[in-house]
Amino acid sequence: MQTIHDLETPSILIDLDIMQRNIAAMQKRCDDLGINFRPHIKTHKIPAIAQMQLNAGAIGIACQKVSEAEVFADAGISDIQLPYNIVGERKTARLAELAKRAKVTVTVDSKAVIDGIAIAAKNATATIHMMVELVALNNRTGTTPENALELAQHILTYHDHLHFAGVMIYPADAAIRPRLQKTLSLLKDADINVEIVSGGGSGAIREAHLIPELTEMRVGTYVFWDWGSVNHGWASFDDCAMKIRATVVSANEKSRIILDSGSKTVHSETVDGRFGYIVEYPNARLHKVNEEHGYVDFSDCDSVPQVGDILHITPVHTCVVTNLHNQLYGVRGENIEEIWDVAARGLVW
Amino acid sequence: MQTIHDLETPSILIDLDIMQRNIAAMQKRCDDLGINFRPHIKTHKIPAIAQMQLNAGAIGIACQKVSEAEVFADAGISDIQLPYNIVGERKTARLAELAKRAKVTVTVDSKAVIDGIAIAAKNATATIHMMVELVALNNRTGTTPENALELAQHILTYHDHLHFAGVMIYPADAAIRPRLQKTLSLLKDADINVEIVSGGGSGAIREAHLIPELTEMRVGTYVFWDWGSVNHGWASFDDCAMKIRATVVSANEKSRIILDSGSKTVHSETVDGRFGYIVEYPNARLHKVNEEHGYVDFSDCDSVPQVGDILHITPVHTCVVTNLHNQLYGVRGENIEEIWDVAARGLVW
Repeated sequence: MQTIHDLETPSILIDLDIMQRNIAAMQKRCDDLGINFRPHIKTHKIPAIAQMQLNAGAIGIACQKVSEAEVFADAGISDIQLPYNIVGERKTARLAELAKRAKVTVTVDSKAVIDGIAIAAKNATATIHMMVELVALNNRTGTTPENALELAQHILTYHDHLHFAGVMIYPADAAIRPRLQKTLSLLKDADINVEIVSGGGSGAIREAHLIPELTEMRVGTYVFWDWGSVNHGWASFDDCAMKIRATVVSANEKSRIILDSGSKTVHSETVDGRFGYIVEYPNARLHKVNEEHGYVDFSDCDSVPQVGDILHITPVHTCVVTNLHNQLYGVRGENIEEIWDVAARGLVW
Repeated sequence: MQTIHDLETPSILIDLDIMQRNIAAMQKRCDDLGINFRPHIKTHKIPAIAQMQLNAGAIGIACQKVSEAEVFADAGISDIQLPYNIVGERKTARLAELAKRAKVTVTVDSKAVIDGIAIAAKNATATIHMMVELVALNNRTGTTPENALELAQHILTYHDHLHFAGVMIYPADAAIRPRLQKTLSLLKDADINVEIVSGGGSGAIREAHLIPELTEMRVGTYVFWDWGSVNHGWASFDDCAMKIRATVVSANEKSRIILDSGSKTVHSETVDGRFGYIVEYPNARLHKVNEEHGYVDFSDCDSVPQVGDILHITPVHTCVVTNLHNQLYGVRGENIEEIWDVAARGLVW
């Protein structure tokens, strides 16, 4: 069996024991809450890992783009939610084709988006499930409770090809509950049936018990966790399944040690001005990245690595790291048990 | 012929007229200086574009990683410089194999790196060209003039398999000239022949006439330029060949318009707090990105786009955008003349 010592660097390692523990823990959290769990696959982009999440009890997956959904449908996954406004004739046509081989649910926040999808569904003689999205504290997509009611009524006018499924919100922080309650009340008064109240967010899952209206939660990052999650208090370093295996390529000064891992490898997000947490040297500061160079200051460390030494980095944000790489390596201890192609990497359509 | 209207969004467009003008202009700049030009391929990662650069007069290419060099050697490019410390037994072995089918030049900043490459070159009965790297104002890799002399002498002890070629510095700002002169003087005093003095940098090329010691320059970004370059004063918006074609997917409030292009598409670097420059709405602020969402505030614009409208974004940094995508589209006006696979995308080994 190959071991991590056979790998080139930089390589992205996934600790299988930790990942499996994370998968089980999040499923249990949702089971205990009595709600459905729908993992967002953006963190791994790999059908085999989605299958592990389904085997653990998830009811389906979430992803953002039609091209991602196609990859997971090709792998046999039959319940896919796109919590995203799918816009454009080519995309809605592909969405409708997809809906003929999988249960497809989308979210919408305007009549324009509804109309485009309705036309495509009609043209393909497909049925697409649709939720209205409420705007949340992040002020991203989504609409008001009053407009959500209007949109639900508009969806219902297309009942031959659209199925009104319910309400979506992201992130589903507890503070947003009044807006959700108002929406549900308006829908109830209009005799509109709500099957699904779908929330999401790695932080929000910790508050999901404060929104009893939720019927399902979507979470992605939990499968690997990352330094950003630790920094938010959502996980501990022991929960972080992803490590970037890197090599020291220059070590001429203690304050100027260079790794073979820059922004093409660790991405460009930071915690506390650092682009990753170096496991072997917690006091080292990975304070700058170019595309292929990581600059590390070891001034606060007792010892300094030498050229050729291998270090392991807990990334700031796993989802964006996954999207940079063609493969992830599933390891148990030093053994490589899985080599996964990142099948949905770079799929932005 | 397909046009840009046939493309899904987001897609990455390259204006062929602008790119060809950029290629010609940089070659002329170096021709006028009487120095060799060696484009860095990190900006495009596409052999066909490298071939255009060679056809215009470039003497070879530069890239950072062995895996990138292999892709360009496979495409028939025969003179490849890696201005990078290549470290690790597997990498140096691959480098030595590469050196048997192309002229390969690397840079080094320590004896440890030299020794590793020398062993691999000997094992493969290959010859690898080697330059010493001086540390520049960016404090990245590189060493002092005195140590550069020692390293040159160390390289010469391996004369059966290593060829000492000269000195490299990045970026080759004019302010660094005294360090370069000192190094060249030390090498001359030791009777060590210097064939190549290689500088690099999109900003440094503007000052290259102030360092007459240079024999070649390496520049990458110039082929597409970008908003970062414009912000530095290195180019104008008219020189920017890359545009990201994006769709408005949500438009419920003027201050909260959402594009289908987030950090997976435009990357995470900023100019003036903005993640890209929207051509059609120069006063719009693309002020935040999630992976699949670009948040745009149109408060300072007279008009506002609607759901389904297409916008074009000049990215902040083209090189990192290229690395996110599987294809670039070469366009002339609205016609798509080229569909290039980004052959060296994500190659970090």
